[in-house]
Amino acid sequence: MKELDKITPLEKDFAKWYTDVVKQGNLIAYGPLKGTLVFKPNSFGIWELIQKYLNEEFKQQGVQNVYLPLLIPERLFNKEKDHIEGFNPELATITQVGEAKLEEKVFVRPTSEVLFADLFKNSIESYKDLPIIYNQWANVVRWEKTTNPFLRSREFLWQEGHTCHNNAMEARQLTRTMISLYAKFLKNYLAIPVIVGKKTPKEKFAGACSTYTVEAMMKDGRALQAGTSHYLAQNFSKPFEITFKDENNNIQFAYQTSWGVSTRLLGAIIMTHGDNRGIIIPPRIAPTQIDILELFASKNPKVSEVAKQLVKDLGRIYRVRLDNSDKNPGFKASNSEIQGTPLRIEIGPRDLENNMVTIVRRDTLEKIVMPINQVKKEVKTLLNDIHNNLYITAKERLDKNIVAVDTYEEFVDQISKSKFVLAPFCCHDEEEEEIKAETGATTRCIPKSMERDEKMKPCITCHHVTKRFVIFARAY
Amino acid sequence: MKELDKITPLEKDFAKWYTDVVKQGNLIAYGPLKGTLVFKPNSFGIWELIQKYLNEEFKQQGVQNVYLPLLIPERLFNKEKDHIEGFNPELATITQVGEAKLEEKVFVRPTSEVLFADLFKNSIESYKDLPIIYNQWANVVRWEKTTNPFLRSREFLWQEGHTCHNNAMEARQLTRTMISLYAKFLKNYLAIPVIVGKKTPKEKFAGACSTYTVEAMMKDGRALQAGTSHYLAQNFSKPFEITFKDENNNIQFAYQTSWGVSTRLLGAIIMTHGDNRGIIIPPRIAPTQIDILELFASKNPKVSEVAKQLVKDLGRIYRVRLDNSDKNPGFKASNSEIQGTPLRIEIGPRDLENNMVTIVRRDTLEKIVMPINQVKKEVKTLLNDIHNNLYITAKERLDKNIVAVDTYEEFVDQISKSKFVLAPFCCHDEEEEEIKAETGATTRCIPKSMERDEKMKPCITCHHVTKRFVIFARAY
Repeated sequence: MKELDKITPLEKDFAKWYTDVVKQGNLIAYGPLKGTLVFKPNSFGIWELIQKYLNEEFKQQGVQNVYLPLLIPERLFNKEKDHIEGFNPELATITQVGEAKLEEKVFVRPTSEVLFADLFKNSIESYKDLPIIYNQWANVVRWEKTTNPFLRSREFLWQEGHTCHNNAMEARQLTRTMISLYAKFLKNYLAIPVIVGKKTPKEKFAGACSTYTVEAMMKDGRALQAGTSHYLAQNFSKPFEITFKDENNNIQFAYQTSWGVSTRLLGAIIMTHGDNRGIIIPPRIAPTQIDILELFASKNPKVSEVAKQLVKDLGRIYRVRLDNSDKNPGFKASNSEIQGTPLRIEIGPRDLENNMVTIVRRDTLEKIVMPINQVKKEVKTLLNDIHNNLYITAKERLDKNIVAVDTYEEFVDQISKSKFVLAPFCCHDEEEEEIKAETGATTRCIPKSMERDEKMKPCITCHHVTKRFVIFARAY
Repeated sequence: MKELDKITPLEKDFAKWYTDVVKQGNLIAYGPLKGTLVFKPNSFGIWELIQKYLNEEFKQQGVQNVYLPLLIPERLFNKEKDHIEGFNPELATITQVGEAKLEEKVFVRPTSEVLFADLFKNSIESYKDLPIIYNQWANVVRWEKTTNPFLRSREFLWQEGHTCHNNAMEARQLTRTMISLYAKFLKNYLAIPVIVGKKTPKEKFAGACSTYTVEAMMKDGRALQAGTSHYLAQNFSKPFEITFKDENNNIQFAYQTSWGVSTRLLGAIIMTHGDNRGIIIPPRIAPTQIDILELFASKNPKVSEVAKQLVKDLGRIYRVRLDNSDKNPGFKASNSEIQGTPLRIEIGPRDLENNMVTIVRRDTLEKIVMPINQVKKEVKTLLNDIHNNLYITAKERLDKNIVAVDTYEEFVDQISKSKFVLAPFCCHDEEEEEIKAETGATTRCIPKSMERDEKMKPCITCHHVTKRFVIFARAY
């Protein structure tokens, strides 16, 4: 069997810590092609639960799931100018089949706007056919130069919602509804607090009119874009001729949105909650919520009996895993911790003499010895506590590390301290690029509401007075 | 709104009937690349339910879900000779990214044996790490020349299970367990009866030692391979060096299996159960189990009230859809039928005068007028009845159309009558090819047990006495 290796302390080398955690936690293996990943049971299980619960949330919004092709002919992709310019350098391009050359290049989808546009063009006739609210769970390929497990890989998994509406207001409203849904979902299931806001013109999606984002703060102070929602206006419906007859029988172009979250969320979970023992998985999306460990089972047959009964009782309600192997107790405990299971129950001969077992919380590492007959009730409370504790800890860190500044000097100083910096900024593309080159920071979003004493301030770069306050940070 | 078009009668032109059904039933749209498909809500919904229920069955067998990369470097694919030879002509090949040429060709996976082999090679050390029983739900690409929705397309969705064992017997046993699981699943969820058997050497999977199959009979008498399970022996573990240390510390090569079902199943559902009004979806995997239709709602406000209450009551247990549009009753009924919803409930002012509603079965088209307060109880019975009726009808057709023959003349005659033909056959590759060229029939399987009077017979082509009895049919 593979031994558990040591994890580099996160205070010492955060990047190395992250790589150790993903490799050790039964989360990934590297694919044979550079920059590709194997999602092992412990990470794919999280993704399956994210799918399940997001599908439930989507259903409340009238979302219907569909599946569109992986392959896009070149002519289709080239129809929207900004879009092809934004994606072209990363497009995996199929030029032959077996030994035979193709007449037209075929791209592996990096996103599916053009495919949905083609579908909508052929399915809509009247305003009565609208809205259409579709979503797909799919893999996409973007040939990134530098890669990092979950955060930036050449293939990733995501959901992409695509909608069509007969008026701009409804489409704009849906764009905002979806970003709020993501923010709530991240809080309620992943225990991740976020800042909701709008992207600057430079950072918006290639082809969108406006992009909303949810930005999370990792333990090293960097930002991670955890989900986006785009108002596409008629930017795709015009070149793709997605039209409908309105109530007066006039032909109009449809209004569109798209929105998505991806397997980046797995990276966000690790870097929001993880510690020097590995990943900590929030209970609601943990593939295994409770590890039940038999300790010294050979010394007392009751150990296995009690374990079996607990697996049966708790397994009705929770996702439970039994470790009845002959490994030593220390290995079993470490193995549960490194895989991030929120709770473990240790059943050993000594506790059993008093009809007790020991429950250990993964977040606080607190050990609680309790009577067997209280376990069921206590588990429910503990799992909720763990979720809340993870969320509150992350929320406090986020709040503490947002700093408002007035000048570029202050800005540079705070960015160097790994803060989220809120600054008055006019959002000129060139100045954003200069700031990135000088400090490594990018604009994360124009937050929906963020307390500042004044309504207007001089921009930190061009010094014109502005009412735009923008969050900057170094980001993944 | 799109009008419902006519469906070609299946007796007149089965192929045209099939194409009409898939287009009309809110099932597919054609993708922009020839041979690719859009799975619309009504077909993707079936696939989601197949995933859900198969996952539950898999869990009983200790299967763990994972996700492996889409992209395979050429060098990896070339390691198993039969495998690359079998798949090479269909491989979508990426040679460039943006405008930059790649140094090594990259294939889009047509199946993932080599990816799993690479993963297993790096994850197994000892016999204690075995068995590994992994499954993935994924898209695969095979560049087929002639395509047909669901049945043969350039991209399809499937699950592929891949396992590693420390002995041949366990691996062989799992191969058989999975094919039995598929047969039961097809019966219990899709209402499709199958013949379970082994593929002839010519028809087995490229790289397998032996292949088991479940073969279904479509309404036109053709066979459809609905699922396969392969015993790979050490055919991949040797070239890929998947080894483990056995109990005596000797290095051994692992024994492997792989098994899968795909979105072909959607084609099987259509061609097993469909009629001249369209698809009939078996209730357990129907995305909508009950359509509730408001008829002449403007004439009596009670129509909408009762509909709303039924949606609420039935929606707790079943997948229910409400049609409260202003379309006419005939359109609403046809629309429900063409989408294959197993039951529809029509709520109209006349029935309501006596506190009655009308339930219509999609399979028999029988109309049942009943008191509102009996609906809930009756729906349960009816949905079960529909499942059983679909299965029994299909099973009777299958049984009636299997014919045993002794000579090649009889064989040719029965194949021309679209039968499944059971014949003594020695399974020489060349003779299989000749039969296919002459009659269009291929070997479907060597069935596990099939009643024949004699134990041995002369082969229909080479006339040597054999105990092999093989099912032939024209197939999709």
